[in-house]
Amino acid sequence: MAELRREPITRTWVVVTTDNPKGPSDYLPFKPPYQPQETGEVCPFCPGHEAMTPKETFMVSREGGGWAVRVIPNKFPFFHIEGEFDRRPEGMYDVMEAIGAHEIVVETPEHKQHFAFMETQQIEKILRAYRERLTDLEKDQRFQQFLILKNYPGVFNRHPHSHLMAMPVIPRRIDEEIDGALDYYQRKERCIFCDIIKEEIAMRKRVILETVHFLVFSPFASRYPFETWIVPKKHTPDFHQIDEEGIEDLSVALQSLFLRLHKLLSDPPYSLAFHTSPIQSRFRRSEYHWHIETRLRIGLREGFEWGTGFFVNPTPPEDAAAYLRELD
Amino acid sequence: MAELRREPITRTWVVVTTDNPKGPSDYLPFKPPYQPQETGEVCPFCPGHEAMTPKETFMVSREGGGWAVRVIPNKFPFFHIEGEFDRRPEGMYDVMEAIGAHEIVVETPEHKQHFAFMETQQIEKILRAYRERLTDLEKDQRFQQFLILKNYPGVFNRHPHSHLMAMPVIPRRIDEEIDGALDYYQRKERCIFCDIIKEEIAMRKRVILETVHFLVFSPFASRYPFETWIVPKKHTPDFHQIDEEGIEDLSVALQSLFLRLHKLLSDPPYSLAFHTSPIQSRFRRSEYHWHIETRLRIGLREGFEWGTGFFVNPTPPEDAAAYLRELD
Repeated sequence: MAELRREPITRTWVVVTTDNPKGPSDYLPFKPPYQPQETGEVCPFCPGHEAMTPKETFMVSREGGGWAVRVIPNKFPFFHIEGEFDRRPEGMYDVMEAIGAHEIVVETPEHKQHFAFMETQQIEKILRAYRERLTDLEKDQRFQQFLILKNYPGVFNRHPHSHLMAMPVIPRRIDEEIDGALDYYQRKERCIFCDIIKEEIAMRKRVILETVHFLVFSPFASRYPFETWIVPKKHTPDFHQIDEEGIEDLSVALQSLFLRLHKLLSDPPYSLAFHTSPIQSRFRRSEYHWHIETRLRIGLREGFEWGTGFFVNPTPPEDAAAYLRELD
Repeated sequence: MAELRREPITRTWVVVTTDNPKGPSDYLPFKPPYQPQETGEVCPFCPGHEAMTPKETFMVSREGGGWAVRVIPNKFPFFHIEGEFDRRPEGMYDVMEAIGAHEIVVETPEHKQHFAFMETQQIEKILRAYRERLTDLEKDQRFQQFLILKNYPGVFNRHPHSHLMAMPVIPRRIDEEIDGALDYYQRKERCIFCDIIKEEIAMRKRVILETVHFLVFSPFASRYPFETWIVPKKHTPDFHQIDEEGIEDLSVALQSLFLRLHKLLSDPPYSLAFHTSPIQSRFRRSEYHWHIETRLRIGLREGFEWGTGFFVNPTPPEDAAAYLRELD
């Protein structure tokens, strides 16, 4: 179980694990967070070991038997599905239970594989699994926000997988984007993401690739070296309303982007997050524009960013885009 | 040279290096950011190698000759001191030159040393060097915000040092804290930090130690395992107006905290940041309350935090405080 605690100054919610908390020995010896770890233990995500995980919530079957993509509840969830929020004060502070859904999408039966070398048909199956699960989870009126997040390589297991979460609060980063988008809309009656797309297509110098429905580019104020955004060219608030044509096209964009990154930076560690509108009619923002952000976990200015919320990026996005564009 | 670029959606400023930018080969091979690095090269921060660095802006002499603390301009600054802001549009975006000061405080002549084992008199000298430099830099009307940041071990050099910066914009994290403090003040006509101090002293369970003038505690919504705040008990917006008694007392608090962390987690990597009010009468916030935040660079949930601005902390602050308190 975990609690959601609100930091009273910036009003940021934090998930704090209260049962089975980690003590000092759990952090020793120090391990770099993104070093590939192969412990030699049996992988619970590999075919044949399905009994080691909770029963799946969704599955894409494979021709000839078995599964191609498998979605399971996370055994160690940040958010738990049962219970009440129990919103309450603790002295001057605010606290509630961390109610939500936290599922793992096992992206392929293959233990060593990733977007750069997957068939686009396999990526389509993963995207369909995301869409199906989100469409189902939207029925639960307790949830306000979806999040899809992938770390490559995975921190605890290298078998390709992503995290799919439904949260009872809107995370700060999404909230900030919405604030910015609403403010822009009020001044101009236009979507800021739509304007960015037009600007980037006109300027070309930060564009990495363009498909029928998506623009892949390095954002003007890239916070990280080789930061990349994948944005649908047509204004759409919610990822999970994507159609089949969109899924096929997005698979091509993802595969091409990660193959380029793989070639350019010899298999870099990365994270990928879907930013999509809050859900439920009372939270949904039609002014928002869903997109994917990717970050390489290289060249981190860990302390500086933490200390300030200020970013220092030594690779201008025009350079990053040129390197990646030319790898076609 | 570097530019300050504004991300138009969340309106976060980013420093982007435009000359001598880093390309892919600069990131290879991947190194974990906080592994101690001893390259065997001559250390420019050690006594006898002063000619390898720019001329100092401030120095604390050592009895018997030489220096005890030395402040030098950073050879590779995020912010440069000369030039004009040249605020301008670039298409739909905003950009200006990254004008500011970025100095390095070499904290001791000893190459291997840190707060946990320093004499408190040495820590006092470091704090005095901070105060003197900030008091001098405040005369420059271009600057809005000071930042003091320390990474242990240092990322590029293990010789104990900290970064002292004067910035032309207010970083997001400080801005968020100010927003929260102002909002609270408007509702209650009290400082939120002062209320937190009273609450924590009354509850005790998150207190690590208390000196005459400072409270050291694990904040209620700790974002990171063993996150710690050091807060002056008396309402004070600006660190650099600290008096001699305050400096002596703060040295004791810092030394004690880092010795406890060292014992508990066997020499963990950490970062430390001073959060202080914006400067110049037109930016200064008398409702703000300066303090120090520390973060251990362990157990990072790198991808999750990045993807969401949402934090997951597996060590409740009550546990963290109890571990550290009992090490007295």
